[in-house]
Amino acid sequence: MIILKIGGNILNNPAALAEALAYFASLPEPAVLVHGGGRKATEVIAAMGREPKMVEGRRITDAPTLEIVTMVYAGLINKQVVADLQALGCNAIGLSGADGNAILAAKRPVKTIDYGYAGDVLGANAPLLVTLLDAGLNPVLCPITHDRQGQLLNTNADTIANETAKALAAARPPGSVALQYCFEFPGVMRDIGDPDSWIPTLTPASYADHKAMGTISGGMVPKLDNAFAAVAAGVGEVVIGDLAALRAGRGTRCVPG
Amino acid sequence: MIILKIGGNILNNPAALAEALAYFASLPEPAVLVHGGGRKATEVIAAMGREPKMVEGRRITDAPTLEIVTMVYAGLINKQVVADLQALGCNAIGLSGADGNAILAAKRPVKTIDYGYAGDVLGANAPLLVTLLDAGLNPVLCPITHDRQGQLLNTNADTIANETAKALAAARPPGSVALQYCFEFPGVMRDIGDPDSWIPTLTPASYADHKAMGTISGGMVPKLDNAFAAVAAGVGEVVIGDLAALRAGRGTRCVPG
Repeated sequence: MIILKIGGNILNNPAALAEALAYFASLPEPAVLVHGGGRKATEVIAAMGREPKMVEGRRITDAPTLEIVTMVYAGLINKQVVADLQALGCNAIGLSGADGNAILAAKRPVKTIDYGYAGDVLGANAPLLVTLLDAGLNPVLCPITHDRQGQLLNTNADTIANETAKALAAARPPGSVALQYCFEFPGVMRDIGDPDSWIPTLTPASYADHKAMGTISGGMVPKLDNAFAAVAAGVGEVVIGDLAALRAGRGTRCVPG
Repeated sequence: MIILKIGGNILNNPAALAEALAYFASLPEPAVLVHGGGRKATEVIAAMGREPKMVEGRRITDAPTLEIVTMVYAGLINKQVVADLQALGCNAIGLSGADGNAILAAKRPVKTIDYGYAGDVLGANAPLLVTLLDAGLNPVLCPITHDRQGQLLNTNADTIANETAKALAAARPPGSVALQYCFEFPGVMRDIGDPDSWIPTLTPASYADHKAMGTISGGMVPKLDNAFAAVAAGVGEVVIGDLAALRAGRGTRCVPG
């Protein structure tokens, strides 16, 4: 079983999106797609004459922003992705976290920053996803969740992919669930300027070494921390790479060691 | 099994919507909710600085309008309704016609008017809906469909409710599927000014008489033509009324005769 996450870079590029969906539709295993947001929400916010609300460089989900991201992520992007997959013969079914209680979340507590209607994932509903997969359906998850008290919440798509993989891993035989992150590089890079510098395999130990040496830093750290948390929770492997890498079975494999 | 259709008048009124959702959540039978659009799409069109496109008094779904109705119907309204139902303990799952190929449609052919991306329903996917209902899920259908070739289409919600009821009736024992239209009147009225003038029962014969006498005319005619087409196709009854009427088992019942 594969959980494939596609991010904003792919959603923003129609040709890349078409290729990624063709790859997803071609997977022989039962598969779940998780998509992020991309720049469309920002465009709609601008078209509606609003300013994205930022505090200390972080985007805040105030009530009007929540309406717009719900429209764009759960409506426009999710349904167009589902329709495109249906055209490819893939029996996709789009879900927000509210649908069938697929992803339960809690509004992020206010500490130094009030993130507004941002959701921290409490858990993915593996029985629901297994029911849909067993019926031959391919769930397509968007980054909108709910708190089961009627509140929709804006949620990080990487986290949704991760929690979905962990929940399915717990419900399936050991090692049978793989998580793939499709992003813009051929893998985790030692040197961002050198396309051949991608790291084929990371274990918890080698990842710790790379962090200590500083060859892995910045935005990759939370992504890989999450990846190794998934591996520790029973996900067989987490693969990170661009579409060509994933297609060829390359990319960086995060494995238990 | 009940298919409940709620229209724009209910969606535009938060208190009425909350009551309608409480009614839906309380139904003891397996149930499917179908919702229309309401005025929110018009508000978003205006907020984005666009004019609704009309030809001969009919709304045209051009490409930007399709994007907006997809955002509003499949995103904002559908997901908020699902989240509200989840809060009421009803395991709702929101679907556009693209999701699981729930409702297949064809782009309306251009005759005298080009309606743009308007969809004429080809059929509802009863096996999908039965799979979801059997899993304890309550499908919530929005009026966006697809052509299975990647094109989303704006579709009349009454038609979706009708076609869904017909498809489920064909898959279930005779007479076991009921269709309820929740609208703003206690039933089909002889005299719109007299709230006591609702007609308790209509058969194909008595409906023909009312049309001939002119006591039923205007917008009720296509609604009732559809209702009797559903009854002819095996739907046990079609009930039309406001929420109080539906709750009390009143309203106008359209029956085979």
